[in-house]
Amino acid sequence: MATVRLLSDAQAEAIPTVKAVFDDIRATRGSDFINNFWRGLANDPATLERTWQSLKAVMTGETVLSPVVQEMIYIAVSTANGCSYCIHSHTAAAKAKGMSEAEHAELLAIIGLAAQTNHLVSAMQVPVDPAFLVQS
Amino acid sequence: MATVRLLSDAQAEAIPTVKAVFDDIRATRGSDFINNFWRGLANDPATLERTWQSLKAVMTGETVLSPVVQEMIYIAVSTANGCSYCIHSHTAAAKAKGMSEAEHAELLAIIGLAAQTNHLVSAMQVPVDPAFLVQS
Amino acid sequence: MATVRLLSDAQAEAIPTVKAVFDDIRATRGSDFINNFWRGLANDPATLERTWQSLKAVMTGETVLSPVVQEMIYIAVSTANGCSYCIHSHTAAAKAKGMSEAEHAELLAIIGLAAQTNHLVSAMQVPVDPAFLVQS
Amino acid sequence: MATVRLLSDAQAEAIPTVKAVFDDIRATRGSDFINNFWRGLANDPATLERTWQSLKAVMTGETVLSPVVQEMIYIAVSTANGCSYCIHSHTAAAKAKGMSEAEHAELLAIIGLAAQTNHLVSAMQVPVDPAFLVQS
Amino acid sequence: MATVRLLSDAQAEAIPTVKAVFDDIRATRGSDFINNFWRGLANDPATLERTWQSLKAVMTGETVLSPVVQEMIYIAVSTANGCSYCIHSHTAAAKAKGMSEAEHAELLAIIGLAAQTNHLVSAMQVPVDPAFLVQS
Amino acid sequence: MATVRLLSDAQAEAIPTVKAVFDDIRATRGSDFINNFWRGLANDPATLERTWQSLKAVMTGETVLSPVVQEMIYIAVSTANGCSYCIHSHTAAAKAKGMSEAEHAELLAIIGLAAQTNHLVSAMQVPVDPAFLVQS
Repeated sequence: MATVRLLSDAQAEAIPTVKAVFDDIRATRGSDFINNFWRGLANDPATLERTWQSLKAVMTGETVLSPVVQEMIYIAVSTANGCSYCIHSHTAAAKAKGMSEAEHAELLAIIGLAAQTNHLVSAMQVPVDPAFLVQS
Repeated sequence: MATVRLLSDAQAEAIPTVKAVFDDIRATRGSDFINNFWRGLANDPATLERTWQSLKAVMTGETVLSPVVQEMIYIAVSTANGCSYCIHSHTAAAKAKGMSEAEHAELLAIIGLAAQTNHLVSAMQVPVDPAFLVQS
Repeated sequence: MATVRLLSDAQAEAIPTVKAVFDDIRATRGSDFINNFWRGLANDPATLERTWQSLKAVMTGETVLSPVVQEMIYIAVSTANGCSYCIHSHTAAAKAKGMSEAEHAELLAIIGLAAQTNHLVSAMQVPVDPAFLVQS
Repeated sequence: MATVRLLSDAQAEAIPTVKAVFDDIRATRGSDFINNFWRGLANDPATLERTWQSLKAVMTGETVLSPVVQEMIYIAVSTANGCSYCIHSHTAAAKAKGMSEAEHAELLAIIGLAAQTNHLVSAMQVPVDPAFLVQS
Repeated sequence: MATVRLLSDAQAEAIPTVKAVFDDIRATRGSDFINNFWRGLANDPATLERTWQSLKAVMTGETVLSPVVQEMIYIAVSTANGCSYCIHSHTAAAKAKGMSEAEHAELLAIIGLAAQTNHLVSAMQVPVDPAFLVQS
Repeated sequence: MATVRLLSDAQAEAIPTVKAVFDDIRATRGSDFINNFWRGLANDPATLERTWQSLKAVMTGETVLSPVVQEMIYIAVSTANGCSYCIHSHTAAAKAKGMSEAEHAELLAIIGLAAQTNHLVSAMQVPVDPAFLVQS
């Protein structure tokens, strides 16, 4: 179903950069599971490595926001961008990191509300209030 | 610049439903300021009232998520939907509710990262891993 | 395949708010069928009730636009937002309410044309003609 | 502000294909006004001609939908695609063709509602009900 | 799964305009294969013909850009618009026309990067540098 | 107009990571000009550095695609995502790197065409032809 091959573990092992990234994903997450996104990206080791390093830098280690809040923001963007895979994977991640049913419900309510007011604002072409402008 | 009139306070006063909503916005927010979004929506009192009641129900009172987290999610959706007004107004709201510069920076980093992986996933048409599917 | 459970009739019966909304959907539509959207929303009775009340207020009762035109607008937005479920459900609804094949064909032609000119305008960054601006 | 030149009447006169299209736009609309979209497209006479012929075929002559309904669908798509110029120009066109304030208000309410349910459906990844599928 | 019927060859044969377009698609592409997009569009012969003529004019014959580059641009737009069918069909077309694995990989890297900076720019609401504005 | 400050050269000089990135941008591009995007990102030196390193890796050095083709793909994504700033900046970059008026015109024609067929496909919910699926 994909437009690229999804590399198996054996195929990944044979490419040093891919092997190193897969090893780091497993070590960082404390799990042997490598999801399909990384197996697709592995067709291009440079992009795989760059993308994983970015994700690792932003989403792990010493972050300002909690892991659950990070994942909720990720779900919000993925929903507005209509990325089915991303919604599935980050909802699973958010739950694994402790998102409660009540938090999930409130997240969905905010996403729906924001989409509604985004579209109302656009249809009315509301000009930005001067009070909202930042001073340089 | 808008496709509808933006009602002045005098015009709003003359329409009972609009007056009631504007009064409630002011009371709820503890501020006399009514931003242009509501002044545009006021052309249709029923939609104004319904939209305000939804926003009030979701974003105020006893919420599960903190007001800052709520606003960050709102910014994430508004950014992905490309709503300039909404990004301005909810960034201002998030700052007013205490979003730090570090939180803002991390929010932006996550939004950028999510957009990148959303598009990579879409371009590769990655199939959802069975592990991410929910049991009914 | 969903990120939330889809409530069965038995599960819905056990939650008073959900039961009341499902009963009202059935009475309003004159049909026993409750589609999956509502069964997913039912995980959060407050959002279920608010969403149904909004939809009922906008799409039923005394409306200015005909039910078929309302559904065609709904299809247009859902298509531009890339919501597969929504396109399926509202196309089915439009047909059930009497949308002819000729109307469906013209709707699709307008959606395609609008998307084309939307993107051409954006790529050229065409400035708004003063004649199109509204006087406040 | 555009990424292309906007051709003046004098510049348009000098290019036979552009002159012919501009003449036809004026004749079809019964107005001397040529809005900026066409002046930008005129940099590429072939795309100008093809786009105008498509728009003329879909939006004028013997249509199944009324001109106001056509424009409302155009506004719906343009809003979801976030095209500011298009929202301005087609809202002006809809008003010129007779869209009432009540119709405009209902259009906006439907656009907002559709965006909300589109995003809720996406965030929940609701599977399509079999009842909505078309038989070939 | 579609919202319209997909016309079989027999059904297409029976409609002169559809038959003519299908014949031209086959002749232009040097292949007997007619993909589902055209079979769906065939429900509306006028839109089928107009769409095919536009695609033929833009994508075939004497083009300025190479067929592979054209298809890569098509994939880029389709990805950002989240059109799964289009991503599949134009990736297949690009490969058939000679897109290498290295070109595909670089295309994906650019799409991901562009999406990231698009969203960062939007979230920051960066004003356009005067140096980027075109002189009329 | 931005939601963040745009750092001046003096402010950038005072932050070592920002200074290093700005120096590298200037050296890589052979120009003293730093556009607003980087001045906004500079509020978060880590994201500035990561974003610049990604852009430098993908868009400069030994690339498979020509610089003009790379910028055209960037414009295509930015247009579909509705990012005004990005369309302006990458159109300027494409021209500076040698994009001809004929190439720009063909790019726009493809973007418009792709958007049209993307939306037609979505509205019809066309199923992917088996011929387009990749073998793993």
